[in-house]
Amino acid sequence: MERRRFIQIAALTGGVSLAAPSIAQTAPPVRWRCVSGFPATLETLFGAAQMLADAVAEATGGRFEITVEEASSPALEQLDALSAGSVEMLHTAPHYFSERDTAFAFGSGLPFGLNQRLTNAWLLEGGGLDIFNAYLGGRSILAFPAGNTGAQMGGWFNREINALADLAGIRFRIGGFGRRIVQDIGVIPQDTPPEGLVAAFEANEIDAAEFAGPAEDTVLGLPRVARYLYYPGWWEGGVALMAMINLDAFNALPAEYQVALRHASAVVNTRIMARYDILNPPALAALENAGTIVRPYSNDIMDACFSAAEQAYRTFSRENEAFAELWESYSAYRRTAYSWMRRSDYAFDTYMMILDRGGRL
Amino acid sequence: MERRRFIQIAALTGGVSLAAPSIAQTAPPVRWRCVSGFPATLETLFGAAQMLADAVAEATGGRFEITVEEASSPALEQLDALSAGSVEMLHTAPHYFSERDTAFAFGSGLPFGLNQRLTNAWLLEGGGLDIFNAYLGGRSILAFPAGNTGAQMGGWFNREINALADLAGIRFRIGGFGRRIVQDIGVIPQDTPPEGLVAAFEANEIDAAEFAGPAEDTVLGLPRVARYLYYPGWWEGGVALMAMINLDAFNALPAEYQVALRHASAVVNTRIMARYDILNPPALAALENAGTIVRPYSNDIMDACFSAAEQAYRTFSRENEAFAELWESYSAYRRTAYSWMRRSDYAFDTYMMILDRGGRL
Repeated sequence: MERRRFIQIAALTGGVSLAAPSIAQTAPPVRWRCVSGFPATLETLFGAAQMLADAVAEATGGRFEITVEEASSPALEQLDALSAGSVEMLHTAPHYFSERDTAFAFGSGLPFGLNQRLTNAWLLEGGGLDIFNAYLGGRSILAFPAGNTGAQMGGWFNREINALADLAGIRFRIGGFGRRIVQDIGVIPQDTPPEGLVAAFEANEIDAAEFAGPAEDTVLGLPRVARYLYYPGWWEGGVALMAMINLDAFNALPAEYQVALRHASAVVNTRIMARYDILNPPALAALENAGTIVRPYSNDIMDACFSAAEQAYRTFSRENEAFAELWESYSAYRRTAYSWMRRSDYAFDTYMMILDRGGRL
Repeated sequence: MERRRFIQIAALTGGVSLAAPSIAQTAPPVRWRCVSGFPATLETLFGAAQMLADAVAEATGGRFEITVEEASSPALEQLDALSAGSVEMLHTAPHYFSERDTAFAFGSGLPFGLNQRLTNAWLLEGGGLDIFNAYLGGRSILAFPAGNTGAQMGGWFNREINALADLAGIRFRIGGFGRRIVQDIGVIPQDTPPEGLVAAFEANEIDAAEFAGPAEDTVLGLPRVARYLYYPGWWEGGVALMAMINLDAFNALPAEYQVALRHASAVVNTRIMARYDILNPPALAALENAGTIVRPYSNDIMDACFSAAEQAYRTFSRENEAFAELWESYSAYRRTAYSWMRRSDYAFDTYMMILDRGGRL
């Protein structure tokens, strides 16, 4: 109806001269706070929240202003503040909240789960985001994908890790949901905050640490305290970041601001992945030039971690109805998606990797 | 300044009650036409333009309305109409225009070039889109990425293609820039329109045809006329689609509509890739169940095509200054990006493929 009336007006006026009734005419200035789950020193991760705020501002002529700040409390307190509405938005990796409830992990992605592209597919067109938001609704939260790190590296170690046995007793700072898995193979997970990792290595409080990828790990100083960088980060094969929004605050927004926020999240979603893919190639090359030894995890480590992960998912599904519902959808897609990618993108990528290794690019 | 004044107003009013001066108050209704480069039967490709129009409409309260239509003329005529401003926008794959000028290929991606994710990275954060738009500006065009097909399949054949020699004399409908390459290895490229492929096979006018991926190839009827589906589509490792806009029309838009169009393109960019990744896995499985034989191209074919492509890029760089500038940026990124991906996403994906092939997912 709105559209038909518009067409009539446009037809009468030749399409350009008369101002149509505008929702924005009555749109009020709105100010929100957004707490980032990441320290401001990490320009890409912290910068994603500012990119989101900037995109919302430009879409609303500056009328909807979001102020980004560093977190001043632990992750679970940030979550409680969001549910209570004392902050309107978080920009973070939802798996940071999986200690509260394992179902949060689906907002970032699971170990041995979907890669970056398939995570987007499952969330945006595979029904995943709808199920996740139905779950979040019970906590007065709504989320939109707003960034992804891609597959992360598998961690910095102060010694060689050649086989599964070498991981026994390793004190490993590992984020998100991977922590729930590695303890089953004898690792002692640590939750050192990223800014404290160098000091923890130097004080011999940890033996290993992972954070994200070459660019941000370098900013955190990890290459100075650990010589071995392993890959891949099987627990973070494509970590989605999300704009997590207090539902009452969202519902109180004018419709145009809701759209602006949703579209701005899409801008950030693509652009942050792109930024990582520009920053990480030279960062990895610089690390290797400076002496970091970059190695793959052995097959026995990968297999043991996969078995532990699958066992954990069975347990969580029994214990947690929301986890079970999300896992059913996520794992059903995983079953078919890689088989498709094996004959499409992976096959293309494989030939490009052959060219790369042969120095032919 | 704008921002500071807004903060003052918001502070005076407690942040929510007073309507700030709004660009949108004076925003006129605008109607544009968008011609899609794809037939309406292809719901994902044609639907991308409608998705873009819908996103623009919801961001502008319906004031900026874009009507999507099928092309009624060949690709190069669409391009001329866009440059002349007789249509405001095309949604298409820019490599369709590479017969006019090889530099257009960079708007979609080159054979043995960047995959979907790296294409986004180069365009959005690696400076590629700026160079491409500087080139397009000379034709009064501005473009935003608005979708990607991912790596396409390598084509349907009515016979086995086991080695390079089997391609000699094959009449192959092949789109975009790949056509420029395959003629150097003895293929006879055809430009049959997608809706005519089944009839062309049945009339023995072609021996092979590629269009996109399992979902859309099935809609076009290709599995009915050809038994062998080869992969990967090395000439389309991550085909970007773009919203190509007449520059004068864009410059005449209110600033908020420009933002709405740019953000809507980002929405479409992510969502179309996601849609393909949801539609193609079951479509490929259905093809195999129905008897399509899905096979990889042999190494000698891949190597010969890669050599032909590299030779062509050297030739085009000598002949065409715009091509040379774009190729320098694109190939420099290609040289470092795969080396990064080999240790990150590709390593993760490889293990997932092992699980997939072993039936463990």
